[in-house]
Amino acid sequence: MPSVAGPARAQAIAGLNAVQHDLLTQPRLAEWFDAANEQGDLGNWEASNLREMERRWKRATCLPSRLVERSTETCKRSEQAWRRYRAENNFKDYAPYLREVIALKREEGEVLGAALGLDAYDALMDEFEPGMRATRVEELFTPLRRTLPALVDDVIEAQSANTVEVPKGPFSVEAQRALGLSLLTEVGFDTDRGRLDVSHHPFCGGVPEDVRITTRYDEADFSGALMGVLHEAGHGKYEQGLPQQWRHQLVGLARGMVVHESQSLLLEMQICRSPEFATYLSPRLVKAFPTQSQAQPSAYTASNVAQLLTRVERSYIRVDADEVTYPLHVLLRFDLERRLIDGQVDVKDLPEAWDAELQQLLSLSSAGNDKDGCMQDVHWPSGAFGYFPLYTLGAMAAAQLHAAYVSYRGNPGAVRAETSKGQFDGLDAWLHKHVWSKASSLSTAELMIHATGSPLSGAAHLEHIKGRYL
Amino acid sequence: MPSVAGPARAQAIAGLNAVQHDLLTQPRLAEWFDAANEQGDLGNWEASNLREMERRWKRATCLPSRLVERSTETCKRSEQAWRRYRAENNFKDYAPYLREVIALKREEGEVLGAALGLDAYDALMDEFEPGMRATRVEELFTPLRRTLPALVDDVIEAQSANTVEVPKGPFSVEAQRALGLSLLTEVGFDTDRGRLDVSHHPFCGGVPEDVRITTRYDEADFSGALMGVLHEAGHGKYEQGLPQQWRHQLVGLARGMVVHESQSLLLEMQICRSPEFATYLSPRLVKAFPTQSQAQPSAYTASNVAQLLTRVERSYIRVDADEVTYPLHVLLRFDLERRLIDGQVDVKDLPEAWDAELQQLLSLSSAGNDKDGCMQDVHWPSGAFGYFPLYTLGAMAAAQLHAAYVSYRGNPGAVRAETSKGQFDGLDAWLHKHVWSKASSLSTAELMIHATGSPLSGAAHLEHIKGRYL
Repeated sequence: MPSVAGPARAQAIAGLNAVQHDLLTQPRLAEWFDAANEQGDLGNWEASNLREMERRWKRATCLPSRLVERSTETCKRSEQAWRRYRAENNFKDYAPYLREVIALKREEGEVLGAALGLDAYDALMDEFEPGMRATRVEELFTPLRRTLPALVDDVIEAQSANTVEVPKGPFSVEAQRALGLSLLTEVGFDTDRGRLDVSHHPFCGGVPEDVRITTRYDEADFSGALMGVLHEAGHGKYEQGLPQQWRHQLVGLARGMVVHESQSLLLEMQICRSPEFATYLSPRLVKAFPTQSQAQPSAYTASNVAQLLTRVERSYIRVDADEVTYPLHVLLRFDLERRLIDGQVDVKDLPEAWDAELQQLLSLSSAGNDKDGCMQDVHWPSGAFGYFPLYTLGAMAAAQLHAAYVSYRGNPGAVRAETSKGQFDGLDAWLHKHVWSKASSLSTAELMIHATGSPLSGAAHLEHIKGRYL
Repeated sequence: MPSVAGPARAQAIAGLNAVQHDLLTQPRLAEWFDAANEQGDLGNWEASNLREMERRWKRATCLPSRLVERSTETCKRSEQAWRRYRAENNFKDYAPYLREVIALKREEGEVLGAALGLDAYDALMDEFEPGMRATRVEELFTPLRRTLPALVDDVIEAQSANTVEVPKGPFSVEAQRALGLSLLTEVGFDTDRGRLDVSHHPFCGGVPEDVRITTRYDEADFSGALMGVLHEAGHGKYEQGLPQQWRHQLVGLARGMVVHESQSLLLEMQICRSPEFATYLSPRLVKAFPTQSQAQPSAYTASNVAQLLTRVERSYIRVDADEVTYPLHVLLRFDLERRLIDGQVDVKDLPEAWDAELQQLLSLSSAGNDKDGCMQDVHWPSGAFGYFPLYTLGAMAAAQLHAAYVSYRGNPGAVRAETSKGQFDGLDAWLHKHVWSKASSLSTAELMIHATGSPLSGAAHLEHIKGRYL
C-alpha cells in the first residue's frame, strides 16, 4: 500500500464494519431469532449455525455502532503509526496511539462483558476463541509456567554438545520463493485456490477459494521464510478444507484461533521440524541452493537440517522463537495484556513491565530497545487483545491432535516413514474428517473431545517438547 | 487472483453492490431529497452535490435489488469465462455468457430508461457519462466518419517516405519498470499516493490517496508499456488532484469518463507523443537501456523516437492502435454495441458483423480469429455497454483542453519548450484550476465551456491530427 494511503484504507474498513454492524443490529433480527429458536425441528448443522448466528448477533447488539466505527478506525490508525514509530524505535510518540486503542478496547470489553456476563478481557478473547476464559488459560498454562523456564536450561545444556552447521548464504529471494511454492504444493496447499506473496508480518488471509499466504525473505537465512510458508500453509489447508456446502454460513467458518493455530503448528512443528521431514527436505534444499550446498555439503545433511530446525535459544523476538521458548513469550504477553486492559499497567510503564517479565520468564535482560521489546508485535497496535494466549493453546491442540492421529494409525513408525517421504494423504484425510469438515459445527472443546477422546490439555504438548528436545 | 477464485470474488462484489443498493433505496431517502430540495440556501457545491446524489439515487431506485445483484454476478462470471475462452479463441463457448450479459444489460437499460425518459442504450451510457446521448455522440462522430478513413490513407502515404528505426530488444521488465516509475514521478504522479503494478489489461483504479496503475510489459518493445504508464498517469493525476475538501461526497468524484479520458489522452497524446517530449525522452531511453542504445544509437535520437511514437497503421487491436486509427475502432464498437443492445445483431452473428464493420471503417479483412476480433476487449464481457464512444469524446476533449491551455499561455513556443524540458507545472496548475478542482461540481458540458470557452467539439482533435500527421 502506498505510504499515504493508510488513513483512507482505515476509513473504508471502518465504514464497511459500520454497515455490517447496522445490518446485524436491525430490530427485526430479535424476532427472527425468537422464531428460529421456537422451531423444534432444526438439524444438527442448523442448530450449530443458529448458535453461531446468535453469538455474533449478541456481540454486535451490545456494541453501539459509533463505538465499533471509532474503534476500528483508531486501531487502523494506530497500526499505521506503529509501522512508522516501530521502525524509528520511538515508543514515546507511539504511546498515545496505544493508549487510545486500549481505552477503546477496554470500553468494548466492558460493554460486551456486561451483556455476556464476562469481564472485559474474557469478552475480548471470546471474539477470537468462543468460550475460552482467562482462568481456563491460566489453568492450562500453569504446568508451563512451572516447568518451562528450567526445561529451557536443560534443553540448551543438552544441545550445547551438538555442533550445528549454519548454511551460508546469500540465498536469492527467487530461489527461496520457488522452493516455498514447490513445498506448499507438496504439503497439500492448493495453489489454484491461493497465492504466496510478501509482507512485513507473515499471515494467512482471504476466503477458502482465494487463500492469501505471505512470508518475508532473508537472503542470509532461508529457514525463516521456509518454515513461515509451511506454517501458513497449515492455516491455508484448513481454510481450503472447510466444507463447501456451508459456504457463506457461519457454521462453515473456521472454528476459532485455537483450532486454526493447531493446524499451522501441527504442520510446522509436529511435521516439518521433525527429523523425518528433515530427511525429506535435505535433497530439496540441495537442489534449491546448488552453489551453496556444493560449497558446504555438510550443512545440508538430513541430521544437520533436523538440528537446524530445532535449535533452542532464548531470544527477544517472539516470531523468531523456537517452539520450546515460544510459550514463554506468550506467557509474558498474556500477563501484560490483562494488566493493560484492567488498568494495572499504564502504557507509559509498559517498557519497564515488559523487561521485568522478560527477566522473570526468559532470564533475559532488557533488549535495550522497544523495537525488539514491547513494540515488536502488531497485535496490540491493531487492537487484538486476548489473542496471544491462543497461540500456545494452539500448540497444545496441535500436539494432542497429532498424538491422536498417531494413535489412530497404531503404528508410529509408519507415520514417521510417510513424513520422510512427504506423504501426507493419510494425515490430511484424518484432519479433514475430524477438524476441517467440522468447521464451526462443534465448539473447540467439543471438537477436541470428538477428535482426540479428551478435552484440550497441555499434556501431549509437554510430552512432545520433552520427547523431541531432551 | 488464483484461477479458481473468480466466482467467490464475483459473489462478494455482488453482495456488496446489493447492500449498497439497499442503502440507497431506503424509502426515507425520498423525504430527505424533498426536504433538501425545499431548502433555498444551498451553496454552489452543495447544490451540485445534491444533484449528483439525486442522479445516483434515481438510477438506484429504478432498479430492483435482485436485478442489480444478478447483473453484477453475471458480468463477473462472464468476465472470468472471457479470460479463459479468449485465450482459447473460442467464441462459440463464450457466446452464451455474452448473451446473458446483454439480456441483463438490456433489461437494466430498459428499466432505467423508462424512469429517466431515455432509450436503453442512452440509459446505460448515462452511467459512465451523465448527460451524454447517442445522438450527440453521432453528431460529434460524423466528421470523423466522413474524414478519417481517407485521412488514414493520406497519413500512411505521407509516412511511407520516412524510415523509422525500431529499437531492438530484449528490454528487461526490470529496466522498463524502473523507467516507467521514474517517468511517472517526473510527469507529476505522486507515488506516495499510488503504485505501479502489472495486469493483463492496463488500468487505473483505487481512491485519490491510493491510486493503482497497471501496465503490461513486452520484452521486445518498450513503447507499449511506457506509453501505457503515461496514459494511466494522466488518469491517476486527475484522481490525485481531486479536491480534498469534498472527499467522500459525490461532488468530489471525477466528473465522468469523457473528462477522465481527456486527462489520460492529454498526457499521452498531446504531450508524451509530441516531438518535444521525444527530445526529453531520448536521453532517458539511452540511460534506461544502455546496451541496446549503444548497439543501435540511431534508434534513440529524438527524431527517431518522435517517429516511433507517432507511427500510423491499420491494425486489429484497439489498445495497440495509434491515435489516428483509434477512433475508427471506437466507431466500429459504437455501431455494434447499439445494435447488440437493441437486438438488431444477435450474439451468434457478432463475428460476422464485426468483420463487416472492420472492412468498411478500417479497410481491413477479417483477422481470421475472434481473439483479435470481437473478443479482444473486456468491456462487453464485463457489461460495460455505452463506454467505448467515450474514449474518442475524451480524445476530443483532450485536444480542446490542450489548445485552450496553449491559447491561455499565448505563446505556443514556450509551451513546447517546457515539454522538451519535462516541465509540467504550468500545465498542471491550469488543469488543476479548470478540471481537477472542479471534480463533479460542473457537468461535463459546463466544464468544457468553463475551461475552454466553447462546448465540446471535435474541431481541435481533427486539427491536432492533421497538424501532427499531415
